[in-house]
Order: sequence, then structure tokens, then C-alpha cells
Amino acid sequence: MRFGVFGDDRLAVVAGADAVDVTDLLELGPVGPQGPLQRLLERPYEPGELAPERLAGLRRWPIADLDWRAPLPRPGKIIGAPANYVEHVDEMPDAHTILDWGVFLKAGSSVTGPDTDVRLPYLDKRTDQEGELGVVIGRTARDVPIDDALGYVFGYTCVLDITVRSTEDRSTRKSFDTFTPLGPWVTTADEVGDPADLQLRCWVNDELRQDAATKKMIFGVPELVAYASSVMTLWPGDVIATGTPAGVGPLRHGDTVAVEIDRVGRLQVGVSSVGAVAYADRPGHGGKR
Amino acid sequence: MRFGVFGDDRLAVVAGADAVDVTDLLELGPVGPQGPLQRLLERPYEPGELAPERLAGLRRWPIADLDWRAPLPRPGKIIGAPANYVEHVDEMPDAHTILDWGVFLKAGSSVTGPDTDVRLPYLDKRTDQEGELGVVIGRTARDVPIDDALGYVFGYTCVLDITVRSTEDRSTRKSFDTFTPLGPWVTTADEVGDPADLQLRCWVNDELRQDAATKKMIFGVPELVAYASSVMTLWPGDVIATGTPAGVGPLRHGDTVAVEIDRVGRLQVGVSSVGAVAYADRPGHGGKR
Repeated sequence: MRFGVFGDDRLAVVAGADAVDVTDLLELGPVGPQGPLQRLLERPYEPGELAPERLAGLRRWPIADLDWRAPLPRPGKIIGAPANYVEHVDEMPDAHTILDWGVFLKAGSSVTGPDTDVRLPYLDKRTDQEGELGVVIGRTARDVPIDDALGYVFGYTCVLDITVRSTEDRSTRKSFDTFTPLGPWVTTADEVGDPADLQLRCWVNDELRQDAATKKMIFGVPELVAYASSVMTLWPGDVIATGTPAGVGPLRHGDTVAVEIDRVGRLQVGVSSVGAVAYADRPGHGGKR
Repeated sequence: MRFGVFGDDRLAVVAGADAVDVTDLLELGPVGPQGPLQRLLERPYEPGELAPERLAGLRRWPIADLDWRAPLPRPGKIIGAPANYVEHVDEMPDAHTILDWGVFLKAGSSVTGPDTDVRLPYLDKRTDQEGELGVVIGRTARDVPIDDALGYVFGYTCVLDITVRSTEDRSTRKSFDTFTPLGPWVTTADEVGDPADLQLRCWVNDELRQDAATKKMIFGVPELVAYASSVMTLWPGDVIATGTPAGVGPLRHGDTVAVEIDRVGRLQVGVSSVGAVAYADRPGHGGKR
């Protein structure tokens, strides 16, 4: 099953070429800034609630006609996996991997959906696309063993982990507003199957920059969930961005970035440099440099 | 005014030696996991709602009789300021400061209150106390100029930014559950006055480890709010931990840590190594190292 959010906090399930509005059926409105899918993840849910006979008669639209938003506009946590593909490590200035670095965090405020351009913050600092498989947590997870970890996964989504190349902490370089495009929907774990058996591709305009098998992750999804849950309690709706393979590269005003993952979806966003400033003029420094 | 949370999601204001339960007066319950103060920050609020005549007749207790919880148990963001006091930079292995590093993020799941011990995760990795002034954001802030920044601050609280010394990203080393004791309450900005005119002291047992003036920050509170808001939109209830001065040091099972800040409060918690594991046995690694 695929859950997406469109319009004014409406939750839809994708059924074939159509999307069905299930907001009222699931009694999810009105919702706060975390949106209707977060609300669903935080309450008991039985798959029978969305049985085909219950969807009959609900409003539906062709997928392409809807204005899809981020399915989880404000995750409680966005956990990132630095240097989690060997070939990506080879292109970075440092030979360390996730084994040394653990995980990092991105701000929930950086999330956008397919409806919003990535905004480049600096005129003179390279800002890269990083296409990634996103894991959406379905149950509170603390000290989960590797063998049980997939049982805590609600589903998967496409993530772009946009990243400035500069000296700052990863949380800064990766948390600018619009730096975590997410979507277009969350595909449930049962429909995706083995997360180590997916191909991930990422294009900038017509250039295929990333093309990798998720089995090449150093920490696979079970290890990531287990490790992250040993550090911090994971809550429903938390997102783990599982790391990017080789092929990151700079974005420019007017680019279009797309990430596509087998059985998960295809997310596409634009890129804008409107409002960008020179790095030397970045705010807060108050003349200190 | 001082806002604290006690018992089962009850919001109190501190009036002299007493605490007055204002949960029902402000119509804040029932609340979700973010607690009643977050709820107050997200709705319009007039100081007249808590005028002395409206507090008369409400239930009150001596401060010491209440089981104080974290005033904000799940902040939307916890933003940290690495190397923001020159004397602390001098004791670190690297001469960089916040000017190079920007800000980092801690997980909201790491927050605890005065009622909970810090739990050390590893038997054989140094884990330090870092006493800090915490800033609580009161209004949504995006690209705020330095001169306007204090207008976005709701109040201040005491923070312990507990930190493992190891190779991992700051977000990992600082985000273990129980690694962000917060409280015991939030003191409103009008009562604190100039945040650059505070003395911060931190003890481990009877040892005074940290004793510093907040005017020694490299980025003061206005610069921190301005800089952070240039990267990520700040929301009501977000917390900025403003960095720690010189004097960090290792914690051990059975220690008591206290941080006290002029006009803000005094926060004290215990330390436990129950459940700690050897670093080499940390989960997730699946025999990879």
C-alpha cells in the first residue's frame, strides 16, 4: 500500500493509477503540522480499515492530477547514515565509514515534498544531491536486535539528502530548509519486500549520476535500525535516510533532480538559487570573521 | 515567570516558594507527548491569563514537594553550539570553533528532566558533562537579524549536553537517551534579562568543574538565534543549547551533576552505568568490526 499526502492535509492511498482520499474514512482530521500520516502512525491501525470494499465510493483522482506534499512534513527525527556505501566513501576526502561515524541528524524543518524546489543557500559553496532510500519507522524501537529490526519498519520512501560541502557539522550542512525532499509517498514494507534488493537511481536533468544496488550498503536497513535504536529511541514517523551511493555532484539553479527506487517510487524536485548569499556574508557572524 | 511540568503532564508556574497548577486554567489538557508547555507555546497567549488574581485559589504546593519533569520533553529541534567558549576550545583536540562548525543537532528523544538519571552507554568510553544555558524559542523564526533575535526567545532553562568522547558524529555522541537533561523549569526572557550577563556553574558531586560568564560566548544568544534561523526555520519550543565553557570531564556511576545559572535555575541529576556495554560490543555492527 502507498500512502501520500496532497492538498490541505489529505491522506491518500494509491490504488493503481488512482489515488483515493482516506482522510475521513480513517478519521484523521484535523491534524497538526506533522500531518495526517503521522497521525495514522501514532494510533492503532488495522489493515482491514483500508480493505478494497471500504475504499469503493470514496473520492479518487488520477495520481498525476494531485499536488503531492511531503508524506511526513515534520518527522520527529531524521537520522542519516554517513558514508554507508563503499563506492561513495571512495569519492570522499576521508576514508572513514559509518562504522566510525555512527549516524547524524537532519532538522525536521528541512523536509519538503515534490511541490517545492530545493533552495541553494550559498552562491559560492558546492551543494550536492544525494539520492537515498528512506525508512519510515512504524513502532517505538529501543535496543532492537538486528534480526527483529525489519518488524519496526512501516515503509519506505525516496529521500534527497541535499548537502553543502563546507566545514560545518553535518547537521548544519544538511539541514537548510528544503534540504530533505521526501516522497512522493510511503510504500509499506510488505509491498517493498527485501530492502537489500532494490536498485536506486538518481538523475540531475538528463544525467544519470547515481545507479546502485541497496545491497551495497555497509549497514543494511536491519543494522541501521538496530544501531540507531541502540543510541536513541525511535518513534513512529521517524525517518532514516540510509546513505547515498557514489555519484554525488553539484546542483545549479534550474536543475531538476529525480531519485527513483524499485517498488518504492520516484521523487522529482527543482533547484533554485533565489535568495542565495555569499558564504562570507552568511548571517550571525556579526563581523567576527 | 517560571514554567515547569510535574506529575502527569501538569503545567505549573512558580510563585515564590510555591508552584501553582495552571493546566486547567489555560485549558492545556489532554496533551500529546510534547507536553503542556509545548501546547502553550503553540497557541496565542496573553500574560494577563496568568495575572495574580487569576492564580488565587488554584492548587499550589511547595516547589520541593513536586516531581518535576522536563519542561519540554520532546522539543521539535535541539540545536547545539560546538566550541562556543574560547576556553573550552583550548581544552579540545581541535582549534576550530562555532565559526567553522556551525551548529549541530541532538535528538529530541534524548531529553529527560530532574527525575531521571543520565545513563552511560559504554563501559570503556569517556562520557562528559557539559553544562549549558538553554534558549527556548517562542515564535517561528526564519532569517532573523541579530538585532531582532532576542524577540524570538520565550525563555531560558538549564541544559546538560552529555557527550561521549569517540569518533562518531556529534549527533550520535550527544543523542543517547537521557543525554539532554533539561529544566527544572523555563524562566521567561523578561525575568532573565540580558543573556550575556549570567554566571553558569556546573558541579559533579562536590567538585565545581565549570564556572563561566555567558558573555564569554563566541556567538552570543542573538548571534546563535540569527545564525541558526538562517539555516533552519526555528519553531516555538525548539531549544538551543548555547555551548559549554571550559571544565568538561568524565562522569561515573553514582555521580550527581548540577548546573546552576543566575536567574534561570538549578538542575540536578544522577548518573548510572546500569545497562552499559563495551564499545566493541555496541549493537548494529553485525560482526563487521
